[in-house]
Amino acid sequence: MGKTKDTNTLSPEKQRKLRLREERIRLMEYQNRAAEAKLPVLVLVEGWAASGKGSLIGKAIQQLDPRFYRVASLEAVREEDRRKPFLWRYFTEIPENGKFVFMDSGWFTNLAQEILDKKTDRDLPEKHLNSILSFERQLVDNGYLLIKCFLNITREEQTRRQKALLSDPDTAWRVSVSDLEQNHRYREYQEVFNSCIARTDKSYAPWHIIDSSSKKDAELAFLEILNTEIQKALDQRPGTDTPLLKDEFPKLELPLLSDIPLDTCSVTNEDYRSQLKKLQKELRSLHNRLYRKGIPVVIAYEGWDAAGKGGNIKRLSACLDPRGYTVHPIASPLPPEKNRHYLWRFYTRLPRTGHIAIFDRTWYGRVMVERLEGFCSEKDWQRAYLEINEFERDLTDWGAVVIKFWVQIDKDTQLRRFQDRQNTPEKQWKITDEDWRNREKWDLYEVAVNDMLQKTNTAAAPWHILESVDKQYARIKALKIVIAELKKALHD
Amino acid sequence: MGKTKDTNTLSPEKQRKLRLREERIRLMEYQNRAAEAKLPVLVLVEGWAASGKGSLIGKAIQQLDPRFYRVASLEAVREEDRRKPFLWRYFTEIPENGKFVFMDSGWFTNLAQEILDKKTDRDLPEKHLNSILSFERQLVDNGYLLIKCFLNITREEQTRRQKALLSDPDTAWRVSVSDLEQNHRYREYQEVFNSCIARTDKSYAPWHIIDSSSKKDAELAFLEILNTEIQKALDQRPGTDTPLLKDEFPKLELPLLSDIPLDTCSVTNEDYRSQLKKLQKELRSLHNRLYRKGIPVVIAYEGWDAAGKGGNIKRLSACLDPRGYTVHPIASPLPPEKNRHYLWRFYTRLPRTGHIAIFDRTWYGRVMVERLEGFCSEKDWQRAYLEINEFERDLTDWGAVVIKFWVQIDKDTQLRRFQDRQNTPEKQWKITDEDWRNREKWDLYEVAVNDMLQKTNTAAAPWHILESVDKQYARIKALKIVIAELKKALHD
Repeated sequence: MGKTKDTNTLSPEKQRKLRLREERIRLMEYQNRAAEAKLPVLVLVEGWAASGKGSLIGKAIQQLDPRFYRVASLEAVREEDRRKPFLWRYFTEIPENGKFVFMDSGWFTNLAQEILDKKTDRDLPEKHLNSILSFERQLVDNGYLLIKCFLNITREEQTRRQKALLSDPDTAWRVSVSDLEQNHRYREYQEVFNSCIARTDKSYAPWHIIDSSSKKDAELAFLEILNTEIQKALDQRPGTDTPLLKDEFPKLELPLLSDIPLDTCSVTNEDYRSQLKKLQKELRSLHNRLYRKGIPVVIAYEGWDAAGKGGNIKRLSACLDPRGYTVHPIASPLPPEKNRHYLWRFYTRLPRTGHIAIFDRTWYGRVMVERLEGFCSEKDWQRAYLEINEFERDLTDWGAVVIKFWVQIDKDTQLRRFQDRQNTPEKQWKITDEDWRNREKWDLYEVAVNDMLQKTNTAAAPWHILESVDKQYARIKALKIVIAELKKALHD
Repeated sequence: MGKTKDTNTLSPEKQRKLRLREERIRLMEYQNRAAEAKLPVLVLVEGWAASGKGSLIGKAIQQLDPRFYRVASLEAVREEDRRKPFLWRYFTEIPENGKFVFMDSGWFTNLAQEILDKKTDRDLPEKHLNSILSFERQLVDNGYLLIKCFLNITREEQTRRQKALLSDPDTAWRVSVSDLEQNHRYREYQEVFNSCIARTDKSYAPWHIIDSSSKKDAELAFLEILNTEIQKALDQRPGTDTPLLKDEFPKLELPLLSDIPLDTCSVTNEDYRSQLKKLQKELRSLHNRLYRKGIPVVIAYEGWDAAGKGGNIKRLSACLDPRGYTVHPIASPLPPEKNRHYLWRFYTRLPRTGHIAIFDRTWYGRVMVERLEGFCSEKDWQRAYLEINEFERDLTDWGAVVIKFWVQIDKDTQLRRFQDRQNTPEKQWKITDEDWRNREKWDLYEVAVNDMLQKTNTAAAPWHILESVDKQYARIKALKIVIAELKKALHD
């Protein structure tokens, strides 16, 4: 690593100083190279209380340009975190391509604490471990460099440092009750930390244990790890090649699109009006109960252009309290969205407990438009079915009701509606050249949609087909499904 | 309004139904026109508990395309809100150009509640009233349409509605203790509401009192107000012409840039090293105390290109705990920033209590680059001095320490540093064509900077000049100033 022979004759202290200088300069250089290569780097710094996580990060960022890094302090769990799924506070903090995020404590601490707290829900840590494993794997598969460090100190060292902090009123507040608890139950914590490390130590995201008893040594070790890992990532990109994993999620049967009868699905105007009124009233009252019980709801709409998604959503939302729901129209991603894991922009839009998020187009864009237009590689969209199933599992594990609609029409119906839009001045803004271009690819889309429906029709988050040649029929059906699913969640 | 004569012969009920339909269609049309005209619309819906704010907003948004509106429910004050300045939760929610935001309760409720709570800090409501008045005026001056509605019901009606809500377990949770308190002390609340309305009722942002005893009538009134106001705003834009207000903030004297001696400001290498170490140590310990006392700090850096801002910031941040500070490099605004009030992107970056935000370039871009490059109108930047002084007053009223640095060098020093950057391979990325173009405008910039320094050198948030021909001198001076200001805030 560029060391010259002369340094060997220097004192150990002088040698370390020289190496520190070398590693600092290297990190500066690598930051620029990572920015050029658009490599996103997520550095997770975990460790014992008082092990020096903060000061270690503080030293590393001194070498970096503030435009290219961010420090996320995630030790304190905030109100909002508690109203979102487990991974939310971590997923929403992932870096953009070419940037660094340093996390001061993260999902590891969170998991270990849950195990130590022996929460009433005994499955929780196991569920969250699964979330963590798929999160880390997904990050790496999607081009992230994930560097996980654990700062280790002995119980004696921790006692000494906590005493020193407590002796000064200006630093005493840094030692929390739970920090003292950790010192008190050091062996027990150690066991849990070790087991969590063992269970999350993967070849694509290995743990680096840093001996943090000497701050200078720890800094040198940290910088060496950062530099070595960044160099490796820069060298091997974009050749990363992980095999496609088998999807073990239980699936439900679903007919192919071409086998879905459409003409028989209709409703009279009269029936429509009376049912609509009744169902909307019922949904309104369910919304109140959901809110009170803190159940989050995610409703996903996908379907052909002009299938009637917008009108369908309108009939659903008309009876909801606007303070408790949001409609998210999903268009092309903005730069900060495009430059992150494709699920990031959906994580940032997840509802809080008791709230409803309605997505007009969704994360399934990955396996439809992004697949067909080549916005991602074949590997990317092939991996995405499992990634999406994992994402939806994390939502249902959280307690969310996940309802997925495919709004179905046939090719002729689409043509009629396109022509109608073209010929009606008030509707012309609804039809674009892109719609016509997409229509030309109908058959390719049909293949992709069938793949998608088959591969993501999980038992926990199944698809519902809305036959929408008669839009009124589709609206009534959507309302009925939403009501049934909410009742199930409310144990009615 | 397109009413035909025949409607007069209809029953009042039928007439209202017809008018409602008309207004709904009109709102749909106006939404499209507002989007085209890039008019941002902020609708503040205030009123008594149980006056129907939510359902009124719910009805209005049924006419709108979800891409063009957002509902902000601000009734519950969250943890994060309490750690930010008063206006933060409202300012960060303002719409983008061409979009609508409906606020369900806002700054009005907040102010009224503070008055009713008779907080120990008696000046607080008065301070916040000033913040509100300048916020509303600034919004309108910067092209926003602000529509303020207050939903009025009698005490008897409120009692009746609260009883109805309480009688059903699924709606009972909607009635909070403070809602019942409001009903109990109705007269007292009424007095405070009336006085707050009177004090914030301005020609550019008038109050609309809506009688909300009948939901149908209230909806019609609300839609009429929205449509009338949007039409007015569309008709008069962009001819809005408000006179420049006099800036009454007390100012301190400051020399012109050309009168600042630079050559005499230097420090020896030896002195630099020993002082740097001592001052950094002192700052580190102050940071701990600040954090503990929850004092927020905003440090703003402005200065000539190549004046040494980056290196100066580095010496400051080197001794700070990375969990307690953030450096915000300010480049050209991204689209969501460009499409909002120019201070929005600084509001979103404000520190929480106990934290330090360091801005590398700031909101003063409005009166420097935006003025000189014509990115805003002359009216815009002339108004900005007062707007910025108000912004900084809101920060200091909140309890923040605001430190503003102008990093000063002369034209020859800049040339030398530019040439050095050009000739040193590792530094070439730091110098761009734009830097050379800006240099050509040195004299124009000097006029703008002098204007800026004179007009915003307020007693509460004065400028500090850092003479930076000797960068080491400037770093020591910056550290000394920060330390002195923090000590003042800590009452040392």
